[in-house]
Amino acid sequence: MVAPSPFAADLLSDTLTRPTEAMRQAMARAEVGDDVFGEDPTLRALEERVAGMLGHEAALFTPSGSMANQLGVRLHVRPGEELIGDSLAHVVRAELGAAAVLSGISSRTWLSERGRFRADDAASLMVTGVGPYQVCTSLVIVENTHNFGGGTVQSLDEIRRAREVTRDRGVAMHLDGARLFNAHVASGVPVDDYGREFDTVSICLSKGLGAPVGSVLVGSADAMAESRIWRKRFGGGMRQAGILAAAGLYALDHNVERLADDHARARRAAEAMAEAAPGCVDLATVETNIVIVDVASMGWTSAAFVDAALADGVRTYAVGPGAVRLVWHLDVDDAGTDVAVDVLTRLLRSAPAA
Amino acid sequence: MVAPSPFAADLLSDTLTRPTEAMRQAMARAEVGDDVFGEDPTLRALEERVAGMLGHEAALFTPSGSMANQLGVRLHVRPGEELIGDSLAHVVRAELGAAAVLSGISSRTWLSERGRFRADDAASLMVTGVGPYQVCTSLVIVENTHNFGGGTVQSLDEIRRAREVTRDRGVAMHLDGARLFNAHVASGVPVDDYGREFDTVSICLSKGLGAPVGSVLVGSADAMAESRIWRKRFGGGMRQAGILAAAGLYALDHNVERLADDHARARRAAEAMAEAAPGCVDLATVETNIVIVDVASMGWTSAAFVDAALADGVRTYAVGPGAVRLVWHLDVDDAGTDVAVDVLTRLLRSAPAA
Amino acid sequence: MVAPSPFAADLLSDTLTRPTEAMRQAMARAEVGDDVFGEDPTLRALEERVAGMLGHEAALFTPSGSMANQLGVRLHVRPGEELIGDSLAHVVRAELGAAAVLSGISSRTWLSERGRFRADDAASLMVTGVGPYQVCTSLVIVENTHNFGGGTVQSLDEIRRAREVTRDRGVAMHLDGARLFNAHVASGVPVDDYGREFDTVSICLSKGLGAPVGSVLVGSADAMAESRIWRKRFGGGMRQAGILAAAGLYALDHNVERLADDHARARRAAEAMAEAAPGCVDLATVETNIVIVDVASMGWTSAAFVDAALADGVRTYAVGPGAVRLVWHLDVDDAGTDVAVDVLTRLLRSAPAA
Amino acid sequence: MVAPSPFAADLLSDTLTRPTEAMRQAMARAEVGDDVFGEDPTLRALEERVAGMLGHEAALFTPSGSMANQLGVRLHVRPGEELIGDSLAHVVRAELGAAAVLSGISSRTWLSERGRFRADDAASLMVTGVGPYQVCTSLVIVENTHNFGGGTVQSLDEIRRAREVTRDRGVAMHLDGARLFNAHVASGVPVDDYGREFDTVSICLSKGLGAPVGSVLVGSADAMAESRIWRKRFGGGMRQAGILAAAGLYALDHNVERLADDHARARRAAEAMAEAAPGCVDLATVETNIVIVDVASMGWTSAAFVDAALADGVRTYAVGPGAVRLVWHLDVDDAGTDVAVDVLTRLLRSAPAA
Repeated sequence: MVAPSPFAADLLSDTLTRPTEAMRQAMARAEVGDDVFGEDPTLRALEERVAGMLGHEAALFTPSGSMANQLGVRLHVRPGEELIGDSLAHVVRAELGAAAVLSGISSRTWLSERGRFRADDAASLMVTGVGPYQVCTSLVIVENTHNFGGGTVQSLDEIRRAREVTRDRGVAMHLDGARLFNAHVASGVPVDDYGREFDTVSICLSKGLGAPVGSVLVGSADAMAESRIWRKRFGGGMRQAGILAAAGLYALDHNVERLADDHARARRAAEAMAEAAPGCVDLATVETNIVIVDVASMGWTSAAFVDAALADGVRTYAVGPGAVRLVWHLDVDDAGTDVAVDVLTRLLRSAPAA
Repeated sequence: MVAPSPFAADLLSDTLTRPTEAMRQAMARAEVGDDVFGEDPTLRALEERVAGMLGHEAALFTPSGSMANQLGVRLHVRPGEELIGDSLAHVVRAELGAAAVLSGISSRTWLSERGRFRADDAASLMVTGVGPYQVCTSLVIVENTHNFGGGTVQSLDEIRRAREVTRDRGVAMHLDGARLFNAHVASGVPVDDYGREFDTVSICLSKGLGAPVGSVLVGSADAMAESRIWRKRFGGGMRQAGILAAAGLYALDHNVERLADDHARARRAAEAMAEAAPGCVDLATVETNIVIVDVASMGWTSAAFVDAALADGVRTYAVGPGAVRLVWHLDVDDAGTDVAVDVLTRLLRSAPAA
Repeated sequence: MVAPSPFAADLLSDTLTRPTEAMRQAMARAEVGDDVFGEDPTLRALEERVAGMLGHEAALFTPSGSMANQLGVRLHVRPGEELIGDSLAHVVRAELGAAAVLSGISSRTWLSERGRFRADDAASLMVTGVGPYQVCTSLVIVENTHNFGGGTVQSLDEIRRAREVTRDRGVAMHLDGARLFNAHVASGVPVDDYGREFDTVSICLSKGLGAPVGSVLVGSADAMAESRIWRKRFGGGMRQAGILAAAGLYALDHNVERLADDHARARRAAEAMAEAAPGCVDLATVETNIVIVDVASMGWTSAAFVDAALADGVRTYAVGPGAVRLVWHLDVDDAGTDVAVDVLTRLLRSAPAA
Repeated sequence: MVAPSPFAADLLSDTLTRPTEAMRQAMARAEVGDDVFGEDPTLRALEERVAGMLGHEAALFTPSGSMANQLGVRLHVRPGEELIGDSLAHVVRAELGAAAVLSGISSRTWLSERGRFRADDAASLMVTGVGPYQVCTSLVIVENTHNFGGGTVQSLDEIRRAREVTRDRGVAMHLDGARLFNAHVASGVPVDDYGREFDTVSICLSKGLGAPVGSVLVGSADAMAESRIWRKRFGGGMRQAGILAAAGLYALDHNVERLADDHARARRAAEAMAEAAPGCVDLATVETNIVIVDVASMGWTSAAFVDAALADGVRTYAVGPGAVRLVWHLDVDDAGTDVAVDVLTRLLRSAPAA
């Protein structure tokens, strides 16, 4: 029923995953109700399941990861206060300034290497107890794994160190866990070990987990009740959303541990490229399902490289003038990986005439 | 597969409709892609279809009717300017102040009878050309049918009169058409005759039309491109939303003209109640699928009436201390209507001892 | 030292008043400090004086009446909640949508006759206790005297009736008292009798009272402490503002009771015009220092009338296509009033050829 | 007429300066009008003067430096876009999050040494041309001199380098010049050489220049016309503000070059402290009127040091747990500096028993 992808390997993003036949059947069978009135049993089941997995009291389903993050941050930061995070974090770089627009939240950032979270960086920027003349820091955000950093897995130790500082100073912590299950699979850290260190956590069902639509925010029951009202204000109140929740439950049942396959394929491709074109990939940075390739070191601009790969059926993404990002996911199997490796290694070895 | 409703007749709201087996199969078969990248073919088909139906260039799918309205109004009103509408309009009464919070839009309202739109009311409140010291009116909103007004169908003549005034004065018009198809079915006016009088129109797929989730905004291609960015900023960017769009397409194919059945059942029930308890329903106000019952005139408080009806399997909604609202929809058939009539007429005739 | 006005009578607005020599000397002698640090003794004295006059605990000086109102309303209304008022109120008509832009506050309005406040109008629009799906009314605003209404004095009885309703329903009340001293002088009601019925009150020193700059907000000590922070956020924190406060104290000492002179002159002019051109002024509406003249009834457009009067040295203001507003104040004396009466009655009797 | 300061030397801030008798007489003589209607001749003269001094077309007077900055930044950044600057900049640290609250502006920051601006830091954070999925950088802010950096004078070369990059990439630049005249006096760079590199510049009259109230924003005539409307929306529209403008004109006539005295006194004190307590002051960092003293290196906490100095009549400010800030200004003369040197050197040499 599902049309085949037009690409031999579509490495553009793990948001591309399409529901399988089995997941579609789960959706078609879902019992539903009106979730704006709190009456959708499948949605309720999903929210309870995710809250439990992450060690929190309650959860709230949202149409996007951005909305889950934005509902989370606004719980902790009042208009005129600030959140702090690294300068490449999705919340400050890729949610179109929503924290400022929707919630009047200010932000300051530190620079990090590949999005790696360090408690000291957060501590150095934090401002508390300075009275009414300066902006007060109310929230630290952490992203795990870190998307623009290239799938970086965060250290639980650093997170715990930051938690100690923030607890002392009355500052909250939010985890953007859009790819938290990738971090769990790569590091072996249970997701609730990560989850319990934060006041709120968002996770996404629609990336590597393969569901078509949806993210989930977790936190205290009071916080989720307040977020429910703000979800409606943001326009995210959906009716019989149990259809989507059924896909999420299916994904949690079947697609978590298989993220290891994506990681293995990403690693295999990275090693092949590193061997074919030494210097183009730093293997130490390939921690999960994302590979950043330095095509400039082989004489390519990223734009030209992306075009050339596309012409051979491999879709990739330019993340800078000389860097290309490859993302593995549910819809790229071993055969697709083989094609990608062939195409990409060949291109890397044969830069265009300048 | 779908669990039966726990109510003999659930007249709470037409948002309750649950997808049928056929609609579920349409969803299960839908071809999908990543709509954030504009690659979902089913979504694209739905957007083109709705734009065409309403006589506009382009369309945008949203997770809720509130988001469709809020994306619409922000196109026309800059921060610090105002929209005007009647004091019971959904945009100003039931979207949790979103226009002010999300877009810095101010509002003033006029009072109307049952939400009935009159061009003169809009003209009397409109302020334009007054320079930089007063708020400038940038938008008039019209709701058709009017929800809190009791399903009121708006006059195309009044809308056209308002359009003439607003055109002269550089003021835009937005139609909240959450129940526009009910207006069409009741009045016989083609939906695009309504649609063409407005700069933007929202319609809802998840009320009487029976789809589980989703609304659609229509307007010019430029306006929709801008709204697409703001939809992401509001957190409404969904990935493989073609699953939901398939339900919407099915609804447009199968569930528009059958709204007449809802209207007929509502009328039948209203007539039975008016006969059983003269004065409790003004039949002239029963224009579509909504009936407002004046239970106070029969010695009931609305809260007591709602409880008593619920005890007999009929769910209704208190819209004021002495008024109860009944809404007919896809999931209330003739048999359900019979039960509702029996229960409600009996209650109306037998007010509790004071 | 002060240049004479270029107009024989400048009836444009009572915001035009210029400080007298004596007031200037009071400013020149003022003891000052840095008010952002709370160290300006003259400002402190003014704030204590105004708080006491209006029967409230504390006060805060602001650079404009708009800022005083906007700080007041935001104390009572959270983002997403609403204030209600009449459709001509300064807060919703003439502060450039600030409540929505700065504080995310929604508004709905009722229509009134000449801005006359009636408790029933407020009660009919008020929405409380409706749960999380509808906008909650948090504040009623009253303007006394009412500017766009033509200087209308509000009834203390109506205000008290509204206070009873709002107290029961947990709704706050804010008084826009930009011209509260005019209401006091016209009605004989002590200003604190008005003041005590409201949670917050703003008054303006820079209209009929004659100070160059400044308004004052009063309320509880906690509310003023919070407003102090928001005043800084809005950019209204001034340093040695005691210079301006000295003018305010002078105005309260010398210019309150003399507002009666403005009222008498306005009345004298209104009577002369009513006699010269019957029907052009409804004397029942001339309650304070503002006169609205229906020039259309004499065959004038307001624009032509304003121009003609200006050519003869009398500046007036068009408040609609056929209505002209005249405002008396400190800088228009008996001689100026005589000139105005001569010029305006002559023009009213001699409409231009159509 | 002016009461003497209660401190032998008040080094808390240069915002403390109080108007002199001569400045007060200039205010008392000022010709004024209603500036909301654009009719205040003294204000007009001040705005023209400042615009000319900074090489810009037009100017706008504001009640505070924060409002001047916030009006400036909102000209360049639309809701959802971002400004970037260093993490200690006044705009992001000390204006209470106003850019996010009032204008929906997002921000990201880099870390700098003592607020020193480097074009490369700005370039490394700038994001442009990335399409609709990421936040777009619309503005770079520079602060000169840099307040929290300790009075750091910015390099015109670095500013010009940044200007080249931003011009190419369509990014605007705003100068927070609250202490721009200090930078001019210290560096010899003409203020308009700084001014011409920026789209908008704010300067403050109420710090070292000694006026009681007011800042000025400069930019294009169109930009200032738009800012005038937003100034009213923010509540910053003042009536006969020529009173304040007269002080500003006086300050520009008499108090610019004398900032050199403040710098000399700050330097003399810094040298005395560095000699008395080697290591407590880095003389290389004393560029203007601000001295940061590392009291921790002498065994003090900043809180204890501030208290001890205050007990001896010298008011200072704790800028961190172990650092104290001293600011010289118009109201601290040679005698006051002598006292400060005596008290502070004595304290630095005699840390309290731990």
